[in-house]
Amino acid sequence: MHKINCKKVLEDIYKDVSSKENKGAIATYIPELAKISPDNFGICFLSIDNEEYKIGDWQTKFSIQSISKVLSLGLAYKIFGDKIWERVGVEPSGTPFNSLIQLESDNGIPRNPFINSGAMVICDMLVSHLENPKEDFLAYVREVCDSDQIQYSETVAASEASVGYRNKALCNFIKSFGNIENEPKEVLDFYFYMCSIEMNCEELSKTFMFLVKDNFKTTKGNKVLSNSKAKRVNAIMQTCGFYDESGEFSFKVGLPGKSGVGGGIVAIYPDKYCITVWSPKLNKKGNSYRGMKFLEAFTTETELSIF
Amino acid sequence: MHKINCKKVLEDIYKDVSSKENKGAIATYIPELAKISPDNFGICFLSIDNEEYKIGDWQTKFSIQSISKVLSLGLAYKIFGDKIWERVGVEPSGTPFNSLIQLESDNGIPRNPFINSGAMVICDMLVSHLENPKEDFLAYVREVCDSDQIQYSETVAASEASVGYRNKALCNFIKSFGNIENEPKEVLDFYFYMCSIEMNCEELSKTFMFLVKDNFKTTKGNKVLSNSKAKRVNAIMQTCGFYDESGEFSFKVGLPGKSGVGGGIVAIYPDKYCITVWSPKLNKKGNSYRGMKFLEAFTTETELSIF
Amino acid sequence: MHKINCKKVLEDIYKDVSSKENKGAIATYIPELAKISPDNFGICFLSIDNEEYKIGDWQTKFSIQSISKVLSLGLAYKIFGDKIWERVGVEPSGTPFNSLIQLESDNGIPRNPFINSGAMVICDMLVSHLENPKEDFLAYVREVCDSDQIQYSETVAASEASVGYRNKALCNFIKSFGNIENEPKEVLDFYFYMCSIEMNCEELSKTFMFLVKDNFKTTKGNKVLSNSKAKRVNAIMQTCGFYDESGEFSFKVGLPGKSGVGGGIVAIYPDKYCITVWSPKLNKKGNSYRGMKFLEAFTTETELSIF
Amino acid sequence: MHKINCKKVLEDIYKDVSSKENKGAIATYIPELAKISPDNFGICFLSIDNEEYKIGDWQTKFSIQSISKVLSLGLAYKIFGDKIWERVGVEPSGTPFNSLIQLESDNGIPRNPFINSGAMVICDMLVSHLENPKEDFLAYVREVCDSDQIQYSETVAASEASVGYRNKALCNFIKSFGNIENEPKEVLDFYFYMCSIEMNCEELSKTFMFLVKDNFKTTKGNKVLSNSKAKRVNAIMQTCGFYDESGEFSFKVGLPGKSGVGGGIVAIYPDKYCITVWSPKLNKKGNSYRGMKFLEAFTTETELSIF
Repeated sequence: MHKINCKKVLEDIYKDVSSKENKGAIATYIPELAKISPDNFGICFLSIDNEEYKIGDWQTKFSIQSISKVLSLGLAYKIFGDKIWERVGVEPSGTPFNSLIQLESDNGIPRNPFINSGAMVICDMLVSHLENPKEDFLAYVREVCDSDQIQYSETVAASEASVGYRNKALCNFIKSFGNIENEPKEVLDFYFYMCSIEMNCEELSKTFMFLVKDNFKTTKGNKVLSNSKAKRVNAIMQTCGFYDESGEFSFKVGLPGKSGVGGGIVAIYPDKYCITVWSPKLNKKGNSYRGMKFLEAFTTETELSIF
Repeated sequence: MHKINCKKVLEDIYKDVSSKENKGAIATYIPELAKISPDNFGICFLSIDNEEYKIGDWQTKFSIQSISKVLSLGLAYKIFGDKIWERVGVEPSGTPFNSLIQLESDNGIPRNPFINSGAMVICDMLVSHLENPKEDFLAYVREVCDSDQIQYSETVAASEASVGYRNKALCNFIKSFGNIENEPKEVLDFYFYMCSIEMNCEELSKTFMFLVKDNFKTTKGNKVLSNSKAKRVNAIMQTCGFYDESGEFSFKVGLPGKSGVGGGIVAIYPDKYCITVWSPKLNKKGNSYRGMKFLEAFTTETELSIF
Repeated sequence: MHKINCKKVLEDIYKDVSSKENKGAIATYIPELAKISPDNFGICFLSIDNEEYKIGDWQTKFSIQSISKVLSLGLAYKIFGDKIWERVGVEPSGTPFNSLIQLESDNGIPRNPFINSGAMVICDMLVSHLENPKEDFLAYVREVCDSDQIQYSETVAASEASVGYRNKALCNFIKSFGNIENEPKEVLDFYFYMCSIEMNCEELSKTFMFLVKDNFKTTKGNKVLSNSKAKRVNAIMQTCGFYDESGEFSFKVGLPGKSGVGGGIVAIYPDKYCITVWSPKLNKKGNSYRGMKFLEAFTTETELSIF
Repeated sequence: MHKINCKKVLEDIYKDVSSKENKGAIATYIPELAKISPDNFGICFLSIDNEEYKIGDWQTKFSIQSISKVLSLGLAYKIFGDKIWERVGVEPSGTPFNSLIQLESDNGIPRNPFINSGAMVICDMLVSHLENPKEDFLAYVREVCDSDQIQYSETVAASEASVGYRNKALCNFIKSFGNIENEPKEVLDFYFYMCSIEMNCEELSKTFMFLVKDNFKTTKGNKVLSNSKAKRVNAIMQTCGFYDESGEFSFKVGLPGKSGVGGGIVAIYPDKYCITVWSPKLNKKGNSYRGMKFLEAFTTETELSIF
């Protein structure tokens, strides 16, 4: 019965949200992202029992941007364990995602791994450890997703690098506190590539099942994260996944999740399901306007939130 | 089987935490609170199936302090509905609990109802609406807890009023932005009384079952909050319940919860259980040192976190 | 020759500024101040050689407001000497005059004695030391000005007290850091009276000659401040006299000075002259629009700036 | 008579300050600067009447560092006039010299041309305008000083570039607000060279006479700045010349001046004299410890301050 409801609920909400004005604006600060059609709207729901419901533009690839930060965190957490928390915190930031203020008062220790500064520190760890950072990270993502169709977008990475003065400022600023080991240039190069990964809704939902299923293993038989670590990543997504709208997302949707300026949102109900929504127009806080609307309606109607 | 484990796990952790150094310091800024023995350590676990496990000083009354802010929020939310969010936000604050900085940049709209400023705005709403604010609020708390043994501590309220210059600053500051309707003096009087409520661990767990059980009703037959509203209160506790250690609590314990400077912590697993821990010594962030240790161990060992 | 020029320059600039639009807005946050006619425009130039040039509404009394902070500083500096710098700084604040942010990061030590918080700390010192603070301070001002026609405005003091929530916030906030000895209520009462003093342009220029003349003595034969202390008060006016427009005033006018929200500005050329300008409309930074224009033109044309 | 006093006063103070503990620490963040002997202590007093008094290590060249910012400001002010104030302010910053906080709240407009961010914006203007920025700027400085013995230190410039992550952060940050026209790399290269200029005390005093003498002209017959502009540069030095110790310097010394982390301080009494002091150990605010002591004693004893 639940199955039937879920599919219908998803379709009804999709129709309802589609029928209403598509507010907000596409991210234009990265020139390449500004070229995307704002009408794209895709969904992929994937349950622990392999129920899969896909609607709209779920097959179209898009730039996952900050959603990628969960994957780099996952890899660094697996490699370094709890040592990573010596260099990055787990507290919500309470200010816009690229603010330098808190970084200054916190002596270069970013508040959490999902704000840009925190993600850069995670990237720095990976750059230090991986033999070929870009190749190795991509191989990891492909294994978790069980797909070799995943690519970086060199165009997006180059586009972001060409205008990323604020990110360059951030990385040099953290370096000035000694919390970046490598040269900022090298860290930023990896960071821009990491954010440029392109996936479609289905690939994202498949990729994030390692945060839904206990002891998730890849088809190659590798465990992505221990249960305990996966729970902690979910906890950080809950409090920090949506920049300074994290409380709002927790309040309205009630699930751990992560958004990107490409318009994607992934949300997770541990032990139950993963859902990916994509619609490129962003609200003022930088999160997908329709994505937020869709997920709020979904968890409200199904009462399938963690609270 | 689960029942047996749970009781034993609670007792084992209690022993273990008791055997280790009791770090931190009792809150001394309220002279009256400084008189409590630091050795108090009580637990009350209460499940949705009425399993109840109590350990140590669970019968001793203590000042619930900020935990009371969940109760005043609950009452205001019931009375005014979503209108309250026009005057207070749902975002984590990211800075110490009594900071005035964010209030200034946010033009007098407190970040959330659990920082002092936000709780004052909620108090202001209740002072405007209730005929006899103190009496009516106490009656409400007694009904939710199903006990007429609950009292304000006039001594604690007076003690806090006598030194509460920072809270007076906060309340006058919000008033200067127009977000307090009544005279600050009156709002503060109610606020200090509200925080002075005394309960023991069992009373707290019983009181907070309205956030555990769907459609919880008091013995008088009144619904405390709708399901949807209760979920949202839980969501706010998850992101904002522990001042600037909210992320840490979410990360380590993985439950919505609320702490008070009296050393109490209430944590909730929706649809499953409520647990109250009390130990007066506080860590640097102002949360019970042993309370945090106990709950972290409890959800880690039982894997009973929401993530 | 200089004499002749000076009178003519003053008159020409007065005509010129009068002929142009009177921009800005009267301070309305103190209800009583909002009643003043915005057309008032008075000047009094007074040299060390007793040349005196008066133009326009120089005889009309107005609320000197923050200009009074120089007088309370002068009295406290005389009484306590350099001990006052343990409780208040001499650095420009760099932020709006009533900001609480810097006070928080500076642990309750106000940046300088001319921002509200700093003036309150000075008031607290005087309240602790003077037998009858209000009477004694008024007597002091009358002696410095050599006039018994100077009064507090009880109406303005009451008006400011009735809406002064931000100042109440400030005073309680400093008290919470331990840098106010007396009850905030008492300090604020003195503070509001101090700011309510009324003078006309001539009285202000006469009063401030103690910062122009070496070893200035009152007609009763009392030295107001030593030379060295007077120089230091001038230095603080130079860097901090105009809130966050202090640099602008120094840049454009090039004299130490002090403004008040009543629209008065007093500027000083040590060893040469004192000039008072009054025009109630304020620019966005809270300083008299015409006062700033007049003084900029005056020091530019006469080249009588200290630089 | 004044001449005699002045020479003797200088010598007496020099002896006195030399006899006391040399507190503070040499700047070590630029590796090359850390090599200087802390015992260096030189003075050069130069009056408008060409009295010249030189004491101690006045012939030793040192890195003038931020003092150079007055020279780049002077050149940009001459070239662009008051247009420069559209891109940089004239207000004291109130926070440490390299803080990014204010820059963020001010949308990339630096508070004044003497904090690093402001000096970079000035450098950006010069890089856009000058054909060969480094060569042209050096030629300008040599002309003002009337000496062809002035050089950049390539070693110091390279040393600063190698560790200047915070300055790189600053420059990219301003660029992200659109207030840097050229590539940050190019602007920083010029900035590091500009700060690496080396002079001795006599050269500095000679160079800064353009801010002392009305209508100062170089031996080639070029006016450096108009009187009005020179006054304004002095005014900015008065309020902003010593980072967040500007108020303190104004208070204690009472002269416009500029310090550098190389331990040099230049102070100016318009129409009277220029004095340069050099001693490499810095106090906590980053200004020469002995330099501050010397100048405070000098203006106190001679009463030759502008106030």
